[in-house]
Amino acid sequence: MPSLRGPRAVPSAPERPHPRRIGIVDLGSNTARLVVFACEPGLWYSIEDQIREVVRLAEGFGTSSHLTDSSIDRAVTALKLICDFAGAADLDRLQVIGTSALREADNRGRFLADIAALDLDLWVLSGTEEAQLGVDAVANSLAFNDAWVVDLGGGSVQASRMTDRTFEAGGAHPLGMVRLTEAYLRSDPPTAAEVATLEAAVAKRLSSWAKKVRRDPAPLVGMGGSLRNLARAVQKQIGYPIDLIHGYFLRLIDLEVLTELLLNRTAAERAEIPGIRSDRADVIAAAALVFRWRLRKTRRDGLVVSGHGMREGAFHRHFLPAPDYRIPDVRRFSVESRLARYPVPHVHTEHVRRLAGLLFDGLMPLHRLGPREKELLDAAAALHDIGVAVDFYHHYRHGAYLLSSKPLHGFSHREQVLLTLMVRHHEKGKPQTKGYEMLLHSGDKKLLRRLTACLRLAEYLERSRAGRIQSLEVEIGTETVRLHLHSREKPTVELRETYKEAAPLFEDAFRRRLELVPEPLTLPAGRV
Amino acid sequence: MPSLRGPRAVPSAPERPHPRRIGIVDLGSNTARLVVFACEPGLWYSIEDQIREVVRLAEGFGTSSHLTDSSIDRAVTALKLICDFAGAADLDRLQVIGTSALREADNRGRFLADIAALDLDLWVLSGTEEAQLGVDAVANSLAFNDAWVVDLGGGSVQASRMTDRTFEAGGAHPLGMVRLTEAYLRSDPPTAAEVATLEAAVAKRLSSWAKKVRRDPAPLVGMGGSLRNLARAVQKQIGYPIDLIHGYFLRLIDLEVLTELLLNRTAAERAEIPGIRSDRADVIAAAALVFRWRLRKTRRDGLVVSGHGMREGAFHRHFLPAPDYRIPDVRRFSVESRLARYPVPHVHTEHVRRLAGLLFDGLMPLHRLGPREKELLDAAAALHDIGVAVDFYHHYRHGAYLLSSKPLHGFSHREQVLLTLMVRHHEKGKPQTKGYEMLLHSGDKKLLRRLTACLRLAEYLERSRAGRIQSLEVEIGTETVRLHLHSREKPTVELRETYKEAAPLFEDAFRRRLELVPEPLTLPAGRV
Repeated sequence: MPSLRGPRAVPSAPERPHPRRIGIVDLGSNTARLVVFACEPGLWYSIEDQIREVVRLAEGFGTSSHLTDSSIDRAVTALKLICDFAGAADLDRLQVIGTSALREADNRGRFLADIAALDLDLWVLSGTEEAQLGVDAVANSLAFNDAWVVDLGGGSVQASRMTDRTFEAGGAHPLGMVRLTEAYLRSDPPTAAEVATLEAAVAKRLSSWAKKVRRDPAPLVGMGGSLRNLARAVQKQIGYPIDLIHGYFLRLIDLEVLTELLLNRTAAERAEIPGIRSDRADVIAAAALVFRWRLRKTRRDGLVVSGHGMREGAFHRHFLPAPDYRIPDVRRFSVESRLARYPVPHVHTEHVRRLAGLLFDGLMPLHRLGPREKELLDAAAALHDIGVAVDFYHHYRHGAYLLSSKPLHGFSHREQVLLTLMVRHHEKGKPQTKGYEMLLHSGDKKLLRRLTACLRLAEYLERSRAGRIQSLEVEIGTETVRLHLHSREKPTVELRETYKEAAPLFEDAFRRRLELVPEPLTLPAGRV
Repeated sequence: MPSLRGPRAVPSAPERPHPRRIGIVDLGSNTARLVVFACEPGLWYSIEDQIREVVRLAEGFGTSSHLTDSSIDRAVTALKLICDFAGAADLDRLQVIGTSALREADNRGRFLADIAALDLDLWVLSGTEEAQLGVDAVANSLAFNDAWVVDLGGGSVQASRMTDRTFEAGGAHPLGMVRLTEAYLRSDPPTAAEVATLEAAVAKRLSSWAKKVRRDPAPLVGMGGSLRNLARAVQKQIGYPIDLIHGYFLRLIDLEVLTELLLNRTAAERAEIPGIRSDRADVIAAAALVFRWRLRKTRRDGLVVSGHGMREGAFHRHFLPAPDYRIPDVRRFSVESRLARYPVPHVHTEHVRRLAGLLFDGLMPLHRLGPREKELLDAAAALHDIGVAVDFYHHYRHGAYLLSSKPLHGFSHREQVLLTLMVRHHEKGKPQTKGYEMLLHSGDKKLLRRLTACLRLAEYLERSRAGRIQSLEVEIGTETVRLHLHSREKPTVELRETYKEAAPLFEDAFRRRLELVPEPLTLPAGRV
């Protein structure tokens, strides 16, 4: 019997040529899903394909812990399909993760016998292991040190505490949405009494958890397919300006409105709500109730949605070194691994980053911004030219599309919008925040203008893409900012283009006239 | 004196590692522009950078053929700047193309002496050569065999006949927009009498051309920076649904409206019209008048705008083999070279293309479509997965963005929209034409549904990306379409996913129930 054991050891690098392809199957209580990750361990990864089947393995768990014949049939069929797919695809590893339904089923043996012929690498998680993989996913894709992590599945919900990016404590509770729906929400739509009974059952199990969380300011992070559906539905209802789920702050007030809507509709009607998958429509109300209860009882305004969960946590065990399985710096990793996907000229990009950093530091007395803003500027400088991969013409617009189309881990949505707008305007135009007000803070317009001015200066000071300006000093006067530019030869094109293209935005953002002073290179080469 | 001579021989391949970088400077009568092309000769090219300065070299040409001191100064400054840029960039070649102002200037010697120190590879084009490069650009970027090609510059306008993708005849006329503006449109805004005088001058020179064109149905193709500005302004006014200029059909009725608008505004007011560059606002009215006159007098409904012109024609002499400098098949080249830019799995892509082709052929009795539609389906199959380069999630949407963001040479805008929508819906959803009606023909909705159904079938029949279905035959019944699928092993995942994901659209598009019949492979391998 395969049963409860850790992942098999990862084969050492020389066995296979790069990149490696790793398939993780999450055999959940609601859905079975194979995700194929391509990666070079430690360096980058990306999702290549996925295949998904609704299996409802936890069917009947509202009243028993017995896998029904039909749920076993569905799961076996889904696994055979997945094995067929995985066998044809050229995977280096295929690992199947079993969660609450398999963990708890009193007739698990029968199911395991049914799939024995498939010879799967099956890891049935304990509740603690399942909770831990969720924390691993959060630690490697969001920039929190501490958080309360909640993972809602079909059979169970995992609740954990992450401290210093490490799993501190946590475990599973039998309050998954399939189970809760079957046990309590029997009418369609559910009655008020059914909702109250469900909430009482949740309270009985989680009140002490809620009390602890209420006294602790660490943010709440949620995950799971149903939460992603809820978040997407809310985004559509409020006209959220970007199409990203990971890192989204789902507000309680919006969830309250959506929950009422879900409770007043039948399952069939819910399937028509934009953002709600039709194959989850019958259990989504229970999911909304669980999260609403948690937010209300912990007195939070909302929670951060993680698009990564247990599946990614399991993948990280193949991608990152034991025993921690941690990306050292999430933001740096996401910028560098994104950059590595695009064929931008490395030397030019690094030079723009260096110049932008020098400008930021030298202008500190004028802007008084901190290290987080400097990091934002550096990320924009790193990624400013990725749009060239689409087309040189309008590459600033294409770059903005690329940046806003995929989450940049560790950056908030607000920061990702600021990055997008910096890239959008790194060459020309006055950066606008129109349409994004919902996401931005007061003062962000000014911040955006200043950071974009630094980026644009750096870009035009490196106009010939030859690293000519080897160092610079910033001299701040009462009416001028003078840049002393050190280079071996006179940087004709840089001077001309910087005055023409970059000076107006700079002067608007910093209220100083820009003066460029070319100077012979007096420092040892390579100083910058 | 460098004067009139052809381009220097291209160094042979082994001299430099691939890709090559070639800079072409177009020292025009209005603008000097360096474009840097990266390429592997014959295989692919893309623009890497450009730098542009308005020089107004034809200033004063309304009344004389004498380069003014100030225009010489501007041009020398611009060339120095460009040389500075090109020297720092690592170019394999830098070639400067001189056009009408240099060709005609009676004091050209002074200018050439002023730039002698720059040691430029300068090719001053004869009128015929300039016309010929325009035809080369059209032949290599649009799918016409025959066309009347009109290239409007600052000093002159070139008019040519392309026959069988070859330059048949053509030359330059001194009717460039800088020259016409100076000679005739002296008021701001111009008076009706001035407009009439300009048109009379154009008529005097071009009436016999117009008479010839009127009797010949070949399409009119226009090019030049001012025409691109006019086209962009019209697109913004009519709410054109895609942001592409190359291949745009600019209708006379729209140009009439825009011309009236331009004639009733001062140059300063014209600069505010979306799409009009401020540094062309003073001469754009003359450009509108020239094109309006041509369309009216040749009784055309409109002209096709080429985004490629003399500059690209000059580049092709380094990119393509002498003596023709022709891409053999423009559409094929654009699909294959676009595909080469994206890291899609080659074997899977080619297999989807083959299956889509077999389905198209087998379903011929039901759809009765022709080779052009088959080519469209093949292009969509080739490019269906390029969006994965952005992100696996929503890759169909990213692919649609990538396809609609850059012209696909040889395909009309209508075809490019159909391709975009096929890619957008290759996995799921019902293809919609909403928002694109302006560009589509009656019947295109049905066409789109049928081609998308074939593409989706091919995609899901190749679901495991392992080339399992090695051949197929289509059996058409009165109520069913039966696909006989030959493979070595039972294609479990393909059958399941095709029924689930591809059958509904197919059945809607072809009004037949889909039946999949797996059969053992009886044909020799590699037959498909």
